[in-house]
Amino acid sequence: MKEFELIEHLIPLLPGNKETVVGPGDDCSVLDVGMPGKLLLFKTDAVVEGVHFTKDDGWVRIGRKAISRALSDMAAMAGEPLSALVTLGLPSDFDFEKVREIYQGIRERAALFNVSVSGGETVRSTQGIFLSISMVGWVPQGRLLLRKNMRPADALFVTGELGGSRSGKHLDFIPRIEHAKWLADRFEIHALMDVSDGLAGDLQRLIEASGLGVELLSEAIPVSKEAKQAARQSGTSALSRALSDGEDFELLFTVPASVAVKLLDAWKERFPGLRLSCIGKVVPEKKIRILSRSGRLTNLDCHGYDHFQ
Amino acid sequence: MKEFELIEHLIPLLPGNKETVVGPGDDCSVLDVGMPGKLLLFKTDAVVEGVHFTKDDGWVRIGRKAISRALSDMAAMAGEPLSALVTLGLPSDFDFEKVREIYQGIRERAALFNVSVSGGETVRSTQGIFLSISMVGWVPQGRLLLRKNMRPADALFVTGELGGSRSGKHLDFIPRIEHAKWLADRFEIHALMDVSDGLAGDLQRLIEASGLGVELLSEAIPVSKEAKQAARQSGTSALSRALSDGEDFELLFTVPASVAVKLLDAWKERFPGLRLSCIGKVVPEKKIRILSRSGRLTNLDCHGYDHFQ
Repeated sequence: MKEFELIEHLIPLLPGNKETVVGPGDDCSVLDVGMPGKLLLFKTDAVVEGVHFTKDDGWVRIGRKAISRALSDMAAMAGEPLSALVTLGLPSDFDFEKVREIYQGIRERAALFNVSVSGGETVRSTQGIFLSISMVGWVPQGRLLLRKNMRPADALFVTGELGGSRSGKHLDFIPRIEHAKWLADRFEIHALMDVSDGLAGDLQRLIEASGLGVELLSEAIPVSKEAKQAARQSGTSALSRALSDGEDFELLFTVPASVAVKLLDAWKERFPGLRLSCIGKVVPEKKIRILSRSGRLTNLDCHGYDHFQ
Repeated sequence: MKEFELIEHLIPLLPGNKETVVGPGDDCSVLDVGMPGKLLLFKTDAVVEGVHFTKDDGWVRIGRKAISRALSDMAAMAGEPLSALVTLGLPSDFDFEKVREIYQGIRERAALFNVSVSGGETVRSTQGIFLSISMVGWVPQGRLLLRKNMRPADALFVTGELGGSRSGKHLDFIPRIEHAKWLADRFEIHALMDVSDGLAGDLQRLIEASGLGVELLSEAIPVSKEAKQAARQSGTSALSRALSDGEDFELLFTVPASVAVKLLDAWKERFPGLRLSCIGKVVPEKKIRILSRSGRLTNLDCHGYDHFQ
């Protein structure tokens, strides 16, 4: 059973309450805790040695990755992060210098976004290191950019370049907090999420949440040079790496088609260093299809990165 | 190096911000997120297979324990819990039935306190299962019952009975949410915390936070029948089990000595099924001392349960 199928089985079991505006299934949960004009975002994200990182990645970068993933989930709601808690599972033979380095990575990223690290817990792990980051933040009330909010004929955008993240970006990426807030402040964003499990896998979640489909333009998908390199080494296509490698931590969002050009122009002026690509459109039929250079439309059968595969 | 020494080294490295009222070092962190008259509580707590539970404990009870520990931290602030997130680390050969049972335990306890489970994450673990629960809740502004708030000559109280928790209570305890709110609503509580690492270890934290000491009455310490049983089996004293076994998840608090009798009377009426014991007093000298039945005062050299020992 795949991770996502498993979680789908569990969701109906989970209790809600009147404060819980958005429960499981989006980038963050959303709570109405009585902040005037604001809603609370709440998220947790874990990384495990041997799955999300190896000892060779360097401990500062591992700490950086752990907190940046949670920050990316805040970005995926166009949220303002406030505070983080750190859970660190350590084997009994850990040494303090490693832990100090992990915290250095966490601290640097937290400080960059004025996020406090308001607590932490260290537990013994029977094997290997794990790191779980909990985070709270907020969004303005009435600005929930949920996956289910995408609409037919929306233009579909993605920031940056996709694929090959494992060559380094997955450890060093800067969460798109500023970009997401800028977008949400200025444009009518319908759905927003971060690309964490590969474009193909994350589009699958978008279509599950919305009941709609997407049609991609293969030529428009921004393939990173790292994806091209990985493709050469592995004998796969660069496009398939871009679609399925995962851990890109870019923003994926939809806007009404009528604002697409204006958005691209404004973006280039504000963020000249970061590519923004219109990669397709939203369609009524709940499928992911891709239009090749030669004009052929095929179903996308590539499922992105799955943690249990 | 012990867990607590390690964490002490890390605390100065952690960034704060203007929203963070209480950072690391108390039962929960406390954030001012702009809720009128309220402060947000934020906490995370993890349990690891082979450390906090074994496969033989039963999966429903393991789920119950995981969420109850975080709820106990909310009780330790006399807080109202609102919502939880679940992080579940599973080996690749997990089966769904176990996961369903874990969630059943979580769900039952969450529902008991009207806490939503607003999200969850399942990650692959390279060995063994771990469960981390993040929780948010709230307290009225101006009612922070912090460890550092204990005052000289306060009377020191503990709920329930201590020791021998490993025989079952550590899995099935009901967090003292209602009791803590009742206390805070009616009495001038100075310091409040939960007893999670053994009375001796937790008193050490109280004296570190406050710069004051405590003097215990050995005869007043409520020793559970499980502690007596464990003592007989292990050849230790029942009192030392009560002082150091850990995982009692009872409330430890101080009040002005003048209200002690009134409090005991009111408690007996409201909670006739749960013992409340005045176990000593707060003294100016930063030491934990214990007065024996024979009237001898000795320093307590027993450090409670340490996860890395």
